[in-house]
Amino acid sequence: MTARLFHVPLSPFCRKVRLSLGEKKIEVELVEERYWEQDPDFLRRNPAGKVPVLRLDGIMMSESAAICEYIEETRPEAPLLPSDPVQRLEVRRLVSWFDDKFHHEVTSKLLYERVNKKVTKQGYPDSKNVKAGAKAIKYHLDYMTWLLDHRRWLAGDVMTLADFAAAAHLSSLDYISDVDWNRSAVVKDWYAKIKSRPAFRSILADQVPGFPPPKQYNNLDF
Amino acid sequence: MTARLFHVPLSPFCRKVRLSLGEKKIEVELVEERYWEQDPDFLRRNPAGKVPVLRLDGIMMSESAAICEYIEETRPEAPLLPSDPVQRLEVRRLVSWFDDKFHHEVTSKLLYERVNKKVTKQGYPDSKNVKAGAKAIKYHLDYMTWLLDHRRWLAGDVMTLADFAAAAHLSSLDYISDVDWNRSAVVKDWYAKIKSRPAFRSILADQVPGFPPPKQYNNLDF
Repeated sequence: MTARLFHVPLSPFCRKVRLSLGEKKIEVELVEERYWEQDPDFLRRNPAGKVPVLRLDGIMMSESAAICEYIEETRPEAPLLPSDPVQRLEVRRLVSWFDDKFHHEVTSKLLYERVNKKVTKQGYPDSKNVKAGAKAIKYHLDYMTWLLDHRRWLAGDVMTLADFAAAAHLSSLDYISDVDWNRSAVVKDWYAKIKSRPAFRSILADQVPGFPPPKQYNNLDF
Repeated sequence: MTARLFHVPLSPFCRKVRLSLGEKKIEVELVEERYWEQDPDFLRRNPAGKVPVLRLDGIMMSESAAICEYIEETRPEAPLLPSDPVQRLEVRRLVSWFDDKFHHEVTSKLLYERVNKKVTKQGYPDSKNVKAGAKAIKYHLDYMTWLLDHRRWLAGDVMTLADFAAAAHLSSLDYISDVDWNRSAVVKDWYAKIKSRPAFRSILADQVPGFPPPKQYNNLDF
């Protein structure tokens, strides 16, 4: 049975799972889920009412952190977590950094205001939030710059889930032109490297009706 | 070198780490951290500016999910994660349920409004939020009831991190009398079991100035 992912294209949590699946060469059928309509069938799949929901190995899975750990444990080839506990700690710390802090300070204030509110018919962007998000992303890009000045990838010398978590958020924001790639050459180089991976292809092909992506979005030499 | 935890007493994320440390019999020195003052020393320990921060094995650690996985990987005795990947998935799904959904819908709307706002001098509780939190906790207690009708512990037949995540949130809310234990006998029994573990002792001894705990808080036969 093919894996099936219930998702929305610009969700960074769905994208992180798609990147993990892609890197592990697990084929997956993508099904767009209008999770905000809280359809009873969907709530049966995930009572938390959120995407991503992944059907894999005959199991219906939710929560992106739990899903990525499961994929890693059952498909250890092309590892996205190092074997050393201290390095694993650093990877997981950074995954939480992006999925919690960056999500709260940036993604929810830019992407959710500009796109999700319109798609789910919840009104207009709140300019106070947009302004706060636009300010906060600078600090986060600077933090990434600091990390990448010391390391080849965000959590160390190899590419990990931390890079996918970060790239998932930044790629969704890049879709709405909210990332200033000129702020940091090392961050831009890092993103160019990750963007050129085969796992990234389906993400660069995403299209959200009413929101055409800008030219640089799927350009590998942006 | 003794382990040292920078924490605040009622933070559910700190409590989850304390419960993990306690269950593994790792002695820890507790240091209260006024994280909201964003002291430069503290920001050096954790640039995310949040608690918990744990010094263990000579490393400064942040993000409770990453910390608990590290403890589990380096101290596998008294396991808090089962060995089967599907069961681990369920444990991690529920940890995220409480640390994300429950936190957002309940803890932040009750505990943060009633206590954190006062402690950090951010004004008065917003009654709209308090009302929403008081409503949402009922749904969550019902979900726990449904789980515990089918299982001995939240994620299956053994006690896991999922139980500690849930107990961390509920115990903090119980400190301000925001849990209606009469709503569900199975949830009350579950909480009595977990409350009587030695790992819970330090949590039941917590005192927050200006917020004396109610009588049932540290009563094992509540």
